[in-house]
Amino acid sequence: MKYVRFRDNSGSAQEGELIRDGIQAGNRLYDPGDVTILPPCRPTKVVCVGLNYMDHIKETGKEPPNRPKLFLKTPNTIAGHGDTISLPVEKKRIDFEAELGVVMGKRCRNASLDNAMDYVMGFTCLNDISNRDDQRREQNWVRSKAFDGSCPVGPYISSVDEVPEGARITLVQNGIEKQCSSVDRMLFTVPEIIVEITSFMTLEPGDIIATGTPSGVGPISHNDVVEVSIEGIGSLVNYFKKA
Amino acid sequence: MKYVRFRDNSGSAQEGELIRDGIQAGNRLYDPGDVTILPPCRPTKVVCVGLNYMDHIKETGKEPPNRPKLFLKTPNTIAGHGDTISLPVEKKRIDFEAELGVVMGKRCRNASLDNAMDYVMGFTCLNDISNRDDQRREQNWVRSKAFDGSCPVGPYISSVDEVPEGARITLVQNGIEKQCSSVDRMLFTVPEIIVEITSFMTLEPGDIIATGTPSGVGPISHNDVVEVSIEGIGSLVNYFKKA
Repeated sequence: MKYVRFRDNSGSAQEGELIRDGIQAGNRLYDPGDVTILPPCRPTKVVCVGLNYMDHIKETGKEPPNRPKLFLKTPNTIAGHGDTISLPVEKKRIDFEAELGVVMGKRCRNASLDNAMDYVMGFTCLNDISNRDDQRREQNWVRSKAFDGSCPVGPYISSVDEVPEGARITLVQNGIEKQCSSVDRMLFTVPEIIVEITSFMTLEPGDIIATGTPSGVGPISHNDVVEVSIEGIGSLVNYFKKA
Repeated sequence: MKYVRFRDNSGSAQEGELIRDGIQAGNRLYDPGDVTILPPCRPTKVVCVGLNYMDHIKETGKEPPNRPKLFLKTPNTIAGHGDTISLPVEKKRIDFEAELGVVMGKRCRNASLDNAMDYVMGFTCLNDISNRDDQRREQNWVRSKAFDGSCPVGPYISSVDEVPEGARITLVQNGIEKQCSSVDRMLFTVPEIIVEITSFMTLEPGDIIATGTPSGVGPISHNDVVEVSIEGIGSLVNYFKKA
């Protein structure tokens, strides 16, 4: 099933399920084009994995890590499908990074490889917007990875069974494909990442794990339209403005 | 005024004010010894400043930064006054770091030096518990700074007027003073830090800024009692167990 949060015409936030005919919320059916899609969850934190696709590791010229390379995004970074995101005007290079987002369904600490997926609500599309000017300059990637709007997610959360093991992940910028891979090319698998994170940190329902980006990352410019698509989920579209 | 959150004997969470005779909550007066003090706020994020006291910069052998050196703690790190904190048993060195915590009172983006303090609710004591084993190994300090319970705060939030400009900050471990400085020895002032952070990130009410630690940081052992005291606020006491 595909879970969706949206705002209806009266302005109230609702939860529903995307079905063939539209969005089902209680007894009502909404046309997805008539509502505002909201971020599908409200995380207390986003735990991100860097350098998790071999092709992206090669393009950065770095060595493959021997354990997941982690960093954080904060709740102020969350944006939704269809949102226009302000790019900090004084930064020269801000990049897109298409990623599979794992949304937690239950509180989780000390998961095992066997039970890690039991805590997962599903998967969503995520764009890990990264300000490279500051990423080069700071030890901890706070200015570079945790600025307002730097983590669009959505449009839906697909349950685990909806997303095939080798699901295709692509990023299209202004109609041109820039990233294309499949989610089974990750160095550390989703259960391995959950085991690692929850060995020291409690994950809460709604928390997101960003599982890393494949090769092809590149800069975003004023007026760009960027679309992250994952097979079995859908397409997360965002508009960007320098402001 | 000193704001406090606590759980009364019936188990319900309450908010009150610490006055001379006890904790005033509505028409009732509670004995602080009869209640469980809770963390005084529920942040969506803790934004921390590293290397912000010259004496601590010297002890680390590093150069003074030319802008605030930022890192993050997540909501799972929050613990309260009186809590017993589990130290990850497999880590060799976990340190205390006494810090002044700034608690935001209003949503804030793009503050100026002139108005930054208008967004502040007050100050609290904070202990930035740090796992040095991983801090040396990771680019972003996630395992080292964002493990469960690694950010005890409290016991109260004192309004800005209650804390003198040169307030004394001390840390006492098992009855022995280990850190002693005054909060006017910070390299970057509280308004400067707020201006810097809110230039790219929205701070929410309850969010905390950890303003850095003075010299004297050191390791915590099994069965330690660690007390962070700041003039005008009070003493944050925590118990530590290897587990």
